[in-house]
Amino acid sequence: MRMYDLIVKKRNGGVLSTAEIDDMIRAYTAGQIPDYQMSAMMMAIYFRGMSPEETVALTMAMAHSGDMMDLSGIAGIKVDKHSTGGVGDKTSIALTPMVAACGVKIAKMSGRGLGHTGGTIDKLESFPGFTTGIDAERFVRQVNEIGVSIMGQTADIAPADKKLYALRDVTATVDNMSLIASSIMSKKLASGADAIVLDVKTGSGAFMKTEEDSFALAREMVTLGNMAGKKTIAVVSDMDQPLGRAVGNALEVREAVDTLRGEGPEDFAGLCRTLGTYMLIAGGAADSEQEAAGKLQAVVEDGSALRKLAEFVEAQGGDPKAVYDTSLLPQAGIVEEIGSVQEGYVTKIDCDEIGICSLLLGGGRETKESAVDLSVGLVLHKKVGDHVRTGEPLATVYANDRAKLEAARARFLKAYHLGDSPASSGPLIRGIVRE
Amino acid sequence: MRMYDLIVKKRNGGVLSTAEIDDMIRAYTAGQIPDYQMSAMMMAIYFRGMSPEETVALTMAMAHSGDMMDLSGIAGIKVDKHSTGGVGDKTSIALTPMVAACGVKIAKMSGRGLGHTGGTIDKLESFPGFTTGIDAERFVRQVNEIGVSIMGQTADIAPADKKLYALRDVTATVDNMSLIASSIMSKKLASGADAIVLDVKTGSGAFMKTEEDSFALAREMVTLGNMAGKKTIAVVSDMDQPLGRAVGNALEVREAVDTLRGEGPEDFAGLCRTLGTYMLIAGGAADSEQEAAGKLQAVVEDGSALRKLAEFVEAQGGDPKAVYDTSLLPQAGIVEEIGSVQEGYVTKIDCDEIGICSLLLGGGRETKESAVDLSVGLVLHKKVGDHVRTGEPLATVYANDRAKLEAARARFLKAYHLGDSPASSGPLIRGIVRE
Repeated sequence: MRMYDLIVKKRNGGVLSTAEIDDMIRAYTAGQIPDYQMSAMMMAIYFRGMSPEETVALTMAMAHSGDMMDLSGIAGIKVDKHSTGGVGDKTSIALTPMVAACGVKIAKMSGRGLGHTGGTIDKLESFPGFTTGIDAERFVRQVNEIGVSIMGQTADIAPADKKLYALRDVTATVDNMSLIASSIMSKKLASGADAIVLDVKTGSGAFMKTEEDSFALAREMVTLGNMAGKKTIAVVSDMDQPLGRAVGNALEVREAVDTLRGEGPEDFAGLCRTLGTYMLIAGGAADSEQEAAGKLQAVVEDGSALRKLAEFVEAQGGDPKAVYDTSLLPQAGIVEEIGSVQEGYVTKIDCDEIGICSLLLGGGRETKESAVDLSVGLVLHKKVGDHVRTGEPLATVYANDRAKLEAARARFLKAYHLGDSPASSGPLIRGIVRE
Repeated sequence: MRMYDLIVKKRNGGVLSTAEIDDMIRAYTAGQIPDYQMSAMMMAIYFRGMSPEETVALTMAMAHSGDMMDLSGIAGIKVDKHSTGGVGDKTSIALTPMVAACGVKIAKMSGRGLGHTGGTIDKLESFPGFTTGIDAERFVRQVNEIGVSIMGQTADIAPADKKLYALRDVTATVDNMSLIASSIMSKKLASGADAIVLDVKTGSGAFMKTEEDSFALAREMVTLGNMAGKKTIAVVSDMDQPLGRAVGNALEVREAVDTLRGEGPEDFAGLCRTLGTYMLIAGGAADSEQEAAGKLQAVVEDGSALRKLAEFVEAQGGDPKAVYDTSLLPQAGIVEEIGSVQEGYVTKIDCDEIGICSLLLGGGRETKESAVDLSVGLVLHKKVGDHVRTGEPLATVYANDRAKLEAARARFLKAYHLGDSPASSGPLIRGIVRE
């Protein structure tokens, strides 16, 4: 194989064979293909696309480029869940104990947040002492014992994807559906679960801005997962405004706890029910949507989901008391309301901007090395369609630094758009993509 | 300027500004833009193309990336000539003394050959002692004194093009008309001549295989040259079979000398007349094609063109006696004829294959470091349309190694295609492209 010939083939609209893609990814991971050839290939793929067979080959080659997690030591069907990311997305924290409480094994790998969307690991670390830095042996044992564990993604999961994504990120070759799908799915396949439920976000705050693109990505990933022998279901959900009301690590954990008590915001609770439904079905714990929904409601009502969260937190070194008393979570020193400067109906919330407000407060990391202030963030009181009077609070802001608070407040007010007549937001669940 | 943003702009079909292209080329030449970003840009340009304004900006930026030759010390209009390259193309050796003998100043930079087409410098070095390794001062003085000089291309002419071409060569981004045109013209513009006559080859042995592509490249380069203030004319000429009959360094020099005596092959002599005509017109030495042709014929008939070659060779350290007695040129030890194995009409000659035969004999370089055997090569006795009997010689082969000769012979016979009825070759001159 000469990389030059493969570039020509793809550039001219040809289809690369599975063997060619295997060789290419192996050689690239081993440092035998220079970045300048791979970036030319990625740009050729951007323009020419990839066939379903090429996408599967790329996904499998990247999945096998490093360690493949062996979860065979866990009895039963292991279900993983992945979100394409959004502002206020604390789904994993509420959803995993709910599903585990229904008897489905959750063995999940998560990443830290980078940029304005936040990561599950940072959020979980709001529980004092909690760690995701556990080894595979402990991970497997914990899932067997209590039905749920979340570990940090190790360096050896799909290293080819890591290297390739870093290159695509600086060469404007990220925006290709097949490449996005293969990047996500290579990591999921290497993570070893038997079934995968995907939450594909759509809207202004999502990576995919249009429903059309979101469904296309969902279909591509579902196809990839199923071709690799994993039962895969995707939910396409709204990200035109932040999910729920809390944005910021400990604030989001509190909202997740509220949700496990049956007191969460309707949109967020609804998304957990939908994703949970398909995780139960994929995990073999329910035969129908109705049955699954009933079980999920029961574990919230009888408190077993909340107890499962406490068990999970304790198993990974965290303080389970914080689950029952959220005042033990990190608390911000300054709590203020942001009042509306006019009267009207909320017609639009710039989703990314709300995420950036949390970042400005210190709640996210701009680079890999940044420290995160887990206590800061915002809780929104008004969402799209709501009426607001002048001076009425749009949100409560949690901060530890007056200057940062003012910077966030100014940015926040610009992110809210008010109009004279009520606007309606789209439905939270836009559709389900199954085999 | 962020390179990432420029890649996105071009990828999305946008037009880069002159300032953006200037900055990009400056930063790339300075090593501030990594190859992997530039190769992604080149692939985006491959798919999106460049506007005429972008192509001019790229050409000028590359031309100004290193030294700009200052030929102001030479009185009158300096004319340069460039060929896109082909097998048996010894045009510069016959043409430059012809044109200089007509009073037009020739200040030309040439490159060495790489691959199977050979380079003017290698050919000229067939004159014992000849060197193109002269400095700019001597170059200018010689053109003032005898009207012609050819110097080797220095490292400082258009270094951006050199770096970019090397990258394009390994990332399958060479085949774009605007990039090809800007690469050639950046070097020509930096070389300092006032007028440029381009010989754009077309056909199976040329870089551009179709007339359509050749004319498009010719138009692009003529536009670039004229926009840069250089009078530029392109001749599109046939390269479906080798030019003339000789292929190989000293053999080609001998054919050039024959042509200056009025005894050259008709196709090669005709091409020299056509290119010379436009060099005389561009150089202000003739007002019409007819006048130019008359002058060119006169300098051949009265021997002044041949004397000019001798003057030129002597001025650059070569032995002028070899001009009048070509037996003083390097001579091969083995001279044999290759007979036809069948009877018929020559319908096609695989041009590149003939070049490769010369390479196999030792007459070219496969890598920059290869040594060249100046004495070897082939002289064709039959060209397209000619009739040949079984056993009649198709060519004479000049070699110094029996094994190499046999390898070349086997390859040569496969390059000749014979048929039952006479085939005609296309006209040598396919057209002229002027402003």
